[in-house]
Amino acid sequence: MKRFINQPNDVVDEMLEGFLLTHGSMVRRLEGARAVVRASREPGRVAVVTGGGSGHEPAFLGYVGEGMLDAVVIGDIFTSPPATAVLATIDAIDSGEGVLLLLGNYSGDLMNFGMAAEWARQKGHLVEMAVATDDVGTGLGTSQSERRGVVGEFLVWKICGAVVAEGASLDDAKALADEVNARTRSLGVALRPCTVPMLGRPTFDLADDELEWGVGHHGERGAKTIKLKPVDDVVDGLTEEILADLPLEPGDELATVVNGLGATPLCELFIAQRRLMRNLERLGLHVRRSFVGNVFTALDMAGLSVTLLHLNEELQARLEAPALTPFFIQG
Amino acid sequence: MKRFINQPNDVVDEMLEGFLLTHGSMVRRLEGARAVVRASREPGRVAVVTGGGSGHEPAFLGYVGEGMLDAVVIGDIFTSPPATAVLATIDAIDSGEGVLLLLGNYSGDLMNFGMAAEWARQKGHLVEMAVATDDVGTGLGTSQSERRGVVGEFLVWKICGAVVAEGASLDDAKALADEVNARTRSLGVALRPCTVPMLGRPTFDLADDELEWGVGHHGERGAKTIKLKPVDDVVDGLTEEILADLPLEPGDELATVVNGLGATPLCELFIAQRRLMRNLERLGLHVRRSFVGNVFTALDMAGLSVTLLHLNEELQARLEAPALTPFFIQG
Repeated sequence: MKRFINQPNDVVDEMLEGFLLTHGSMVRRLEGARAVVRASREPGRVAVVTGGGSGHEPAFLGYVGEGMLDAVVIGDIFTSPPATAVLATIDAIDSGEGVLLLLGNYSGDLMNFGMAAEWARQKGHLVEMAVATDDVGTGLGTSQSERRGVVGEFLVWKICGAVVAEGASLDDAKALADEVNARTRSLGVALRPCTVPMLGRPTFDLADDELEWGVGHHGERGAKTIKLKPVDDVVDGLTEEILADLPLEPGDELATVVNGLGATPLCELFIAQRRLMRNLERLGLHVRRSFVGNVFTALDMAGLSVTLLHLNEELQARLEAPALTPFFIQG
Repeated sequence: MKRFINQPNDVVDEMLEGFLLTHGSMVRRLEGARAVVRASREPGRVAVVTGGGSGHEPAFLGYVGEGMLDAVVIGDIFTSPPATAVLATIDAIDSGEGVLLLLGNYSGDLMNFGMAAEWARQKGHLVEMAVATDDVGTGLGTSQSERRGVVGEFLVWKICGAVVAEGASLDDAKALADEVNARTRSLGVALRPCTVPMLGRPTFDLADDELEWGVGHHGERGAKTIKLKPVDDVVDGLTEEILADLPLEPGDELATVVNGLGATPLCELFIAQRRLMRNLERLGLHVRRSFVGNVFTALDMAGLSVTLLHLNEELQARLEAPALTPFFIQG
């Protein structure tokens, strides 16, 4: 394993320290927890909090800031943070208007964030939870509620961050998160798996002429292994499979993400983006905002994913509202 | 070669098209050239233009925008753009106050940008050129004027973008670019080389327990090959070698960049950043602004570089001035 690390055990704490030394004007660390909160925020607003395992950088830390996330709680690599850390974060960030917890659909996160929400309610906090389930790669025939949450979460963070900045209530923000999730689908592929530092070996094997279809964010195998093909053909397949699950009509409006999974050059993501935009245009769909970059990664996986969000006027306005965080991609 | 591309020949044009389809509200393409200019800019200001070979994304395109670059001209992968394209860009962007061309110290760029500057002057444009030479990895004992320009260019773009936004003259902006360059040093290392799509094979060989020291941005071998070691030791060596060439005293103020070369997870860059910040603090140096991320890459090279800029009050203010471009990292 060739990596720029010290001890595999220290990766998360050293990464977090480096992040805080870089972005200390925007965030501060919460004592006693692997969590960061915004250095300053307007009181009288619902707080938007997310988190999950590490190894997805710039998610989650890189999206804390004005108009997006108020706090983030992280765990070990690909491992949910403990409920106590989530509770400490809720205690620190809630100014009385309540806290919206946004998470992906993973059993560890559901359990730990759920437990923290319960404890926090007992202490008098208003807490709601919204769970992202945008990954159509989780398996054919699964209902949306059984699916993983992947890059769609990024769009939920952005839109909820914008609406609470305008003063939305906790219930309204929670309803909006669920609405965004219901209108969002993602699908990812990989050329190479990732290597979790504590394990020291790739999470699966893939031949030089193979591509893994339907991968998630944790180095899991995908739904199937196929032969390598030109990226235009890959994007055509992704578009088709996503649209089979997200019924759209000519004239509908979309937001899109072409996401790099960690080791994919930006140059290649823009080549994929070109084909995606052409495919959607040919179908009469109008893309109002798109993001291309390493938004939500899986360590050093060489892969990419495509996310589509079926916009309406309200969602588009929230997506276009200003956000100033270390790694938010400006449009 | 496993890559998300179509034909190797089409990589640059397809990437450029994808970029324009994503950031069309910020930039527009210049007809007849591989160049982009800001969609709108205040008249009555000196224009700041850069460019060079492709394969360095998000450099150069990702830094066109408010407070930074006014235009960018790109060539094929790792290949200078033609002088005619640079001239067309100068023609398009100059509102009469002149154009500052910022480039790295490569013979192709010097020749093509130099020729374009000459032609542009004959047509009545005011044009100045400033050449970045920040790479101490180019070879021991070389004078600064013989060195490659690498990530230091990013700091020059930011500072010159800020000063022309304030209305600086062409001569003042050019002097400032030279001053920033004289106060900046970079050094890079790699765990894996890159693969140029047209060649289809890695640019050099490196064993599983080896690290290449002193690499540039074009897949060149570095100054030497050493045994792999923990990232803290790597960063200690980089710090030491840079500081041997950039005399600083306790109390001096710095800006820093820890840059990923394309396939390095952000998580690892923050681990390197942590060590760098500790090293500089121990020496009594004060870091006022630091950047960590994929700022200036070399396709899919797994590597990182460290850049130090010796600040003064004026440079710090310019660095902290707002910039809104697709990939500028907010602090």
